[in-house]
Amino acid sequence: MNITLEQAEKIIAGAKQKAVELNTKMNIAIVDAGTNILAFARMDGALLGAADISIRKAKTACLFQKNTGVLGTLSQPGGPLYHIEHSNGGLITFPGGIPIRNNEDIVIGAIGVSGSSVDNDHAVAEAGIEALLVRDKLLKQE
Amino acid sequence: MNITLEQAEKIIAGAKQKAVELNTKMNIAIVDAGTNILAFARMDGALLGAADISIRKAKTACLFQKNTGVLGTLSQPGGPLYHIEHSNGGLITFPGGIPIRNNEDIVIGAIGVSGSSVDNDHAVAEAGIEALLVRDKLLKQE
Amino acid sequence: MNITLEQAEKIIAGAKQKAVELNTKMNIAIVDAGTNILAFARMDGALLGAADISIRKAKTACLFQKNTGVLGTLSQPGGPLYHIEHSNGGLITFPGGIPIRNNEDIVIGAIGVSGSSVDNDHAVAEAGIEALLVRDKLLKQE
Amino acid sequence: MNITLEQAEKIIAGAKQKAVELNTKMNIAIVDAGTNILAFARMDGALLGAADISIRKAKTACLFQKNTGVLGTLSQPGGPLYHIEHSNGGLITFPGGIPIRNNEDIVIGAIGVSGSSVDNDHAVAEAGIEALLVRDKLLKQE
Repeated sequence: MNITLEQAEKIIAGAKQKAVELNTKMNIAIVDAGTNILAFARMDGALLGAADISIRKAKTACLFQKNTGVLGTLSQPGGPLYHIEHSNGGLITFPGGIPIRNNEDIVIGAIGVSGSSVDNDHAVAEAGIEALLVRDKLLKQE
Repeated sequence: MNITLEQAEKIIAGAKQKAVELNTKMNIAIVDAGTNILAFARMDGALLGAADISIRKAKTACLFQKNTGVLGTLSQPGGPLYHIEHSNGGLITFPGGIPIRNNEDIVIGAIGVSGSSVDNDHAVAEAGIEALLVRDKLLKQE
Repeated sequence: MNITLEQAEKIIAGAKQKAVELNTKMNIAIVDAGTNILAFARMDGALLGAADISIRKAKTACLFQKNTGVLGTLSQPGGPLYHIEHSNGGLITFPGGIPIRNNEDIVIGAIGVSGSSVDNDHAVAEAGIEALLVRDKLLKQE
Repeated sequence: MNITLEQAEKIIAGAKQKAVELNTKMNIAIVDAGTNILAFARMDGALLGAADISIRKAKTACLFQKNTGVLGTLSQPGGPLYHIEHSNGGLITFPGGIPIRNNEDIVIGAIGVSGSSVDNDHAVAEAGIEALLVRDKLLKQE
């Protein structure tokens, strides 16, 4: 079960809209259930270094089926997953990555957002997923 | 001088349309003038392995301001750029990557396409750039 | 649609049996449809360097939905995919990797075998897949 | 002196049984005395990101002949091995990796387990080794 490109494009559109509302410039990445890159967009003027971070956030969220920020609380000094970031070619464990689930709660992909504060990054990722859900709900009602 | 996300999205839309016409499923990557990834789309069912290739084609075309296929003719055994593929973290030198130039002939980015025969890959990349030029020309006439 | 661990173990068992028949010592790797490692076995005395090769063969076969040897004929000097091996973190394009397909012809994973001649490697990979098919056929007849 | 594939398979079988008892889905990796991968199994539904972690835990335990969790207590800020995780291509130093020793107490390999809490990961790794010891003891009594 994998996210489609059409779904990914809806998510990116929703995320971009939220980024504009927040007056930020974001990198937005979508990976499929196998953590392979599916879609990506860097808004004009967004930080270059945040492109790779957004992709790694999406991969991290998909690899562990968790919001990246949750992993980050577990990987602190003294925590149970200290330095988990060294695995899988380099993880990013601060907020901005969120798994995308279908109606049966199966992870079908993930979004990663980077370019502003981690709170903004997370809010934009959430808005992206919300845009997909709202749209899917509307379609079902028709 | 850099390509914008809006321009990149027009290019991807044009490339996707051509890919559908050719009955192919493509990975399409756009990099900016600094060879940094700007936009990416993998059409549903496109080869997973071609995602990375499309990105490398775009980077290669931008790094050397040449169609990737041209480099490939120079990198053969006995050729002047033999094994240039080992540089820059790994180049791809068969067709499908094309630099994107502005009206002053300055390279502002590049497109890389992968997923079918190299002839189809190149045709889809060309169609993407064409879509931008046609649209920009129309806009100027208005 | 992904291969299961139970299926992977049947494939490895079949491959090991064939390897013994051929008086060889093999590394045998199975990846899922997302090219993520699922199962692996190195027979006692098998070449250490062939472990990584077997995993890369499996990934390559899955990434491009082709036998690795087919890619290898296309990546020769003068061929259309010359030096494709530089993509995806390093491909292996000589024989020994084969995609695994379900009844609907969808790729659900791949096997990679390395440790002997490439002909033996391919034969052992084929025997692994055959073991799965035979067993699945028997189960259906019951 | 190296662990054999047959021993590795017994360990994996024992680890899988314990994982089922704990209602978890694990990635289980075995490396030989040279830290080279020998056998691997990802249970259906186990976290994708934990595959690489299980392999790194096995390598880490073998490289330093210590349980990974012990290293993790030494690698904390202010500790004697602070940031040792940066060595050897990336270590994992939380629990779940255990060296495997023969009757002369020589390290002949290591197991790494990942997919649940670190306590569960460690318990499953221990059960894997225990399965080998019990079986070897039984064989000697015969």
